[in-house]
Amino acid sequence: MHDETEQEIATRLIGRVDRYESTIRAFASYDPARARQEAATAAQGPLSGLSVGVKDIIDTAYYPTGHGSPIYDGNHTRNDAACVTLLRQAGALCVGKTVTTEFAFFRAGATVNPYDLSRTPGGSSSGSAAAVAAGMIDIGLASQTAASLTRPASYCGIVGFKPSYGRYAAAGVKGLAPSFDTLGTLTADVATAVLADGVLKGPCPVRMTPSARVPARIGLCRTPWWDEAEDSTRLALLDSGRRFGTHADVEDVDLSAFSDAADLHVTIMSYEAAQALAWEFTDRRALMSQQIVGLLEAGRAIGYETYRAALTRAAALRERIDTLFDRYDVLLAPAAPGVAPKREQGTGSPIFSRLWTLLRLPTVTLPGPVGDGGLPVGVQLLGRIGSDEDLLNVAAWAEAILPARPVPAICRQGE
Amino acid sequence: MHDETEQEIATRLIGRVDRYESTIRAFASYDPARARQEAATAAQGPLSGLSVGVKDIIDTAYYPTGHGSPIYDGNHTRNDAACVTLLRQAGALCVGKTVTTEFAFFRAGATVNPYDLSRTPGGSSSGSAAAVAAGMIDIGLASQTAASLTRPASYCGIVGFKPSYGRYAAAGVKGLAPSFDTLGTLTADVATAVLADGVLKGPCPVRMTPSARVPARIGLCRTPWWDEAEDSTRLALLDSGRRFGTHADVEDVDLSAFSDAADLHVTIMSYEAAQALAWEFTDRRALMSQQIVGLLEAGRAIGYETYRAALTRAAALRERIDTLFDRYDVLLAPAAPGVAPKREQGTGSPIFSRLWTLLRLPTVTLPGPVGDGGLPVGVQLLGRIGSDEDLLNVAAWAEAILPARPVPAICRQGE
Repeated sequence: MHDETEQEIATRLIGRVDRYESTIRAFASYDPARARQEAATAAQGPLSGLSVGVKDIIDTAYYPTGHGSPIYDGNHTRNDAACVTLLRQAGALCVGKTVTTEFAFFRAGATVNPYDLSRTPGGSSSGSAAAVAAGMIDIGLASQTAASLTRPASYCGIVGFKPSYGRYAAAGVKGLAPSFDTLGTLTADVATAVLADGVLKGPCPVRMTPSARVPARIGLCRTPWWDEAEDSTRLALLDSGRRFGTHADVEDVDLSAFSDAADLHVTIMSYEAAQALAWEFTDRRALMSQQIVGLLEAGRAIGYETYRAALTRAAALRERIDTLFDRYDVLLAPAAPGVAPKREQGTGSPIFSRLWTLLRLPTVTLPGPVGDGGLPVGVQLLGRIGSDEDLLNVAAWAEAILPARPVPAICRQGE
Repeated sequence: MHDETEQEIATRLIGRVDRYESTIRAFASYDPARARQEAATAAQGPLSGLSVGVKDIIDTAYYPTGHGSPIYDGNHTRNDAACVTLLRQAGALCVGKTVTTEFAFFRAGATVNPYDLSRTPGGSSSGSAAAVAAGMIDIGLASQTAASLTRPASYCGIVGFKPSYGRYAAAGVKGLAPSFDTLGTLTADVATAVLADGVLKGPCPVRMTPSARVPARIGLCRTPWWDEAEDSTRLALLDSGRRFGTHADVEDVDLSAFSDAADLHVTIMSYEAAQALAWEFTDRRALMSQQIVGLLEAGRAIGYETYRAALTRAAALRERIDTLFDRYDVLLAPAAPGVAPKREQGTGSPIFSRLWTLLRLPTVTLPGPVGDGGLPVGVQLLGRIGSDEDLLNVAAWAEAILPARPVPAICRQGE
């Protein structure tokens, strides 16, 4: 086997998109000719031969950046976002922009779930998640303000890595609520997430590989929202805990002290979104969905003192969770209430991520054990803030313990 | 006296710019016709009748946003930054974009200091500071990553308010180092800073007025960099302390435990800038100054572990400074090493702000007592993080204790 030439790489990577794009509709914009051009001048680095899809709230000089909103139809920025440059500098090939919900909130685009075309891939990082699940790209750039990375990872049976708040540079990424907005990745496995992490965490690419680590003690968190977990999620969490329990101590953790976290998250997110999208709300409101107008109106109704109090309480909860990590290497928690809902029902509930996003913890979503329905359901592992490398190493261990995710039927047909 | 009509307001505000712009060169772009158009549809609110100059790293839909760099010549964004919309929603009239140094770092634009046309107004918020000092605008939008707001306020004899980190929405503002980047205001007095604060801190404008508060105890900080303070700064600090001492307890505070803060600030800023400006460095380096290329190369030479260690140490220093505010209502410190340098010497040293920016504290710069040279020198008051309202109220008291700043000679000529 010979080394691939640049154009062979481009042909292979473009072919993976072409095979499923008419079915999955993961891309907001995609240009194979441009990908070939970029391949011809691509850098050599740890991501050589891998392709990237860029969530369409992230600036790119070549492709328009639409933010999932008609307000930004045909919007061209002069620059690439920092994360796009860092990935390209490491050799990755950017094959296009992936579909986002409107401003990374709720109104869905056209993307479908590769496991069931009638279901949502989840939002807001819809296109990146579906494209990874269908094997169209290697790395999906994604972001999370509530559950926008963890939830589509869970619904699409892939690995979602939302690092510690602030780990990846947000320059050139449209914000929604700066207290929470976090850039991350969607990949088919932990090793690829680690490769991307070595590139995205600093100005110069570093080649990284995971080193699987067995944790001594895992905290199993049903969370205060357990009543909202469907059977599929309950099975995934408890069965994962049992599997891990043959190698590590797994203990139930009571998070009732954190039960106000979801409301705090909503308060802070609404207030900050009403600031961040002030121009769109004031000057282009007729082009916004009722969903996002509702969010911004809710934010505008919150007084500054209420917002400040929520920030203060959130800081206290962050200190409190930190002490839990003196006892537990990682926490294990549900990633979403259940399997992906039907598309007409929306992009799913963020309830199982609001707490963790509020706390700014790094989280890795892994495909969990799957029940009779066959649709994927994720679980998430959470680490202490700043301990991203440790968490990824534990995730590499956990990934090997959990069953391999099923291959989507549409991908089996072509085999 | 009758209420001004919209067009009378516009005529008055435009006239203030026209009178000095050919001398001061505070604006990167300015269009009186546009200002008249905006005046015709201006909202009514707490800032009605006041004008705003927008630092040219802040997006505006009408004016190009040049970031002080030829890379962004004629760069038009679709949107206004959140802060611009919030100010306009409160009735302010945006009269143009004010000069910034290149990417808010060191390479200076054409703006001069109204007190001495051979001197720098300071950087990076050069145009906003000079325009306020010459009476051309009421509110200058400004930002600080090292000393970019405090230093020009000091050199131009005006009030600089850099709020607690994160208080004002950064959506649509070009970032340099996200751990520090903070939006703030330059104004002729504390009352105007408070008016603007009531508008910028939330999605809906609130009309605010300062309520002067006498502090019980003030901590006087020569700081570990006192050797770098020139006589003008020493006089300003110590004379301010004596004046305040007739009303409040003023005690010397030893900050030797913070002496590594300036180096930590440089490490974090360099590393993050090398990420934030990755696209410019990789794809447009030939259009960047040697100064900023040097910053980015320094950042690229820093390893991730060194950067992480600096973040951890910075967090510890933030906890430590917080305990000082159990004893002191506010701290009093130098705002810059001395008076504004000659333009050919650059935009001045940031040394007296690195510590405070690292600590993310709110700070108000006030014109201090002035020595024989007659050029302004500021002092800064610092408060506990999140106590911005209290700090502004103390600043309103301090402003009345300190001598009024001298009027610039070019403004006296026209009287």
